Amino acid sequence: MSADGMLLAQAPDGVPIITRGDDLAALLVPVLERLSWPDGSTGLAEGDVVVVASKIVAKAEGRLVAARDDAERESVIAGETVRVVAERERPDGTTLRIVENKLGLVMAAAGVDASDVPPGTALLLPEDPDASARRLRRGLLARTGVRPGVLITDTAGRPWRRGVVDMAIGAAGVQVVTDMRGSRDAYGRELQITVIAVADEIAAAAELVKGKVSGRPVAVVRGMGHVVTLEDGDGAASLIRPAVEDMFRHGVSQD
Amino acid sequence: MSADGMLLAQAPDGVPIITRGDDLAALLVPVLERLSWPDGSTGLAEGDVVVVASKIVAKAEGRLVAARDDAERESVIAGETVRVVAERERPDGTTLRIVENKLGLVMAAAGVDASDVPPGTALLLPEDPDASARRLRRGLLARTGVRPGVLITDTAGRPWRRGVVDMAIGAAGVQVVTDMRGSRDAYGRELQITVIAVADEIAAAAELVKGKVSGRPVAVVRGMGHVVTLEDGDGAASLIRPAVEDMFRHGVSQD
Repeated sequence: MSADGMLLAQAPDGVPIITRGDDLAALLVPVLERLSWPDGSTGLAEGDVVVVASKIVAKAEGRLVAARDDAERESVIAGETVRVVAERERPDGTTLRIVENKLGLVMAAAGVDASDVPPGTALLLPEDPDASARRLRRGLLARTGVRPGVLITDTAGRPWRRGVVDMAIGAAGVQVVTDMRGSRDAYGRELQITVIAVADEIAAAAELVKGKVSGRPVAVVRGMGHVVTLEDGDGAASLIRPAVEDMFRHGVSQD
Repeated sequence: MSADGMLLAQAPDGVPIITRGDDLAALLVPVLERLSWPDGSTGLAEGDVVVVASKIVAKAEGRLVAARDDAERESVIAGETVRVVAERERPDGTTLRIVENKLGLVMAAAGVDASDVPPGTALLLPEDPDASARRLRRGLLARTGVRPGVLITDTAGRPWRRGVVDMAIGAAGVQVVTDMRGSRDAYGRELQITVIAVADEIAAAAELVKGKVSGRPVAVVRGMGHVVTLEDGDGAASLIRPAVEDMFRHGVSQD
């Protein structure tokens, strides 16, 4: 937390259209350097977390594939699917599937994105978002001298709540969970809720300033320096609940 | 969004211990009025969202009940439970249950809280968090002349991700979802992801500055004025997915 405990977040405009082969760090640095902060500083500072929408990472990495019709798109989704978690027929006869994808993420359509891509195509998620985050972090350090935390984020729904929120699917230099085991409450008892998904909360805060239609796929969150680490760390893969802890893999009560 | 699109969030210290019968607005206003912002302003302003942990709302509303041993606590939880969604035996022989509670929220232990409460007691959630939010909003308006958005938040886990995040269980004067139906992407196609759970994202952002052990149960989020409404609105109840849309009520695939 910054000295006065304030969190600040902003999403600059002017991020260029990203296409296959682009050096993301090289394109983002000029945009990030234009950021101005209330204390008069500009650009990035140690302790900042750079939050990047997975969409532009995937585009730079050439994750665009052909999906010329519904059947081909379904085939693309099936190719990314490891396990169907739930499915429902839509009124129009198509099937909505929540699946576990190759990254272990549970999402609709395996996270395959058919919006903001040229017609007849679909966008897969980055193949290894944590590696992408580490690569971007190195690129930002090389160009700015600052070693920010980096999160790569995607959007997903929730089983029992309406609407979508952003979450971290890639991370470098961010302690993705704060583990409060051993902390005690005001009555001296050990806290029951010990693991806070800080990276997902930072992703959500960043989405508030990025938005979905305004062409601002990158945000910087300042004030979370206490979860920014020198080492790249375990990444966002460590946010995925192991199968053995998954209470919804077997026997959800049926009514 | 503020003129420069920045989000700011901070959680003041000095919130007194809250007990049954307390007038929450009366106790919070002096604390909130001490807030200082980078632009030199102090206190609350129109467009601010005041984010309050459900724990202190519940305490003020006398939602503390006896829970003198595990059996009594289980009984309290059962009393708040409408439907068991999933359960698992823990190594110690106790049962972890994810249930739908009387508010329609799906949470571990029906949201009954056994931390930060006197030994031998447990804390139920507020009976009607949206009404609590409206009441608090009225109290803040009466004392400050400002009509902020108000969110009441609680903490919950997620089925397929480790760790917990905060979400909004009560709301007044906040557009809890931004509905982007009709918006089009850069290629002119209607956006697939149309409903963003903004209130949950604000709750998550607020948690980043509140934390769990530092005694800061209230935060103010500035810069989200575009989702603060004059009317109290539908509240956070509208964030709960209706049963008919719940894909996990029947037939999660078993493997």
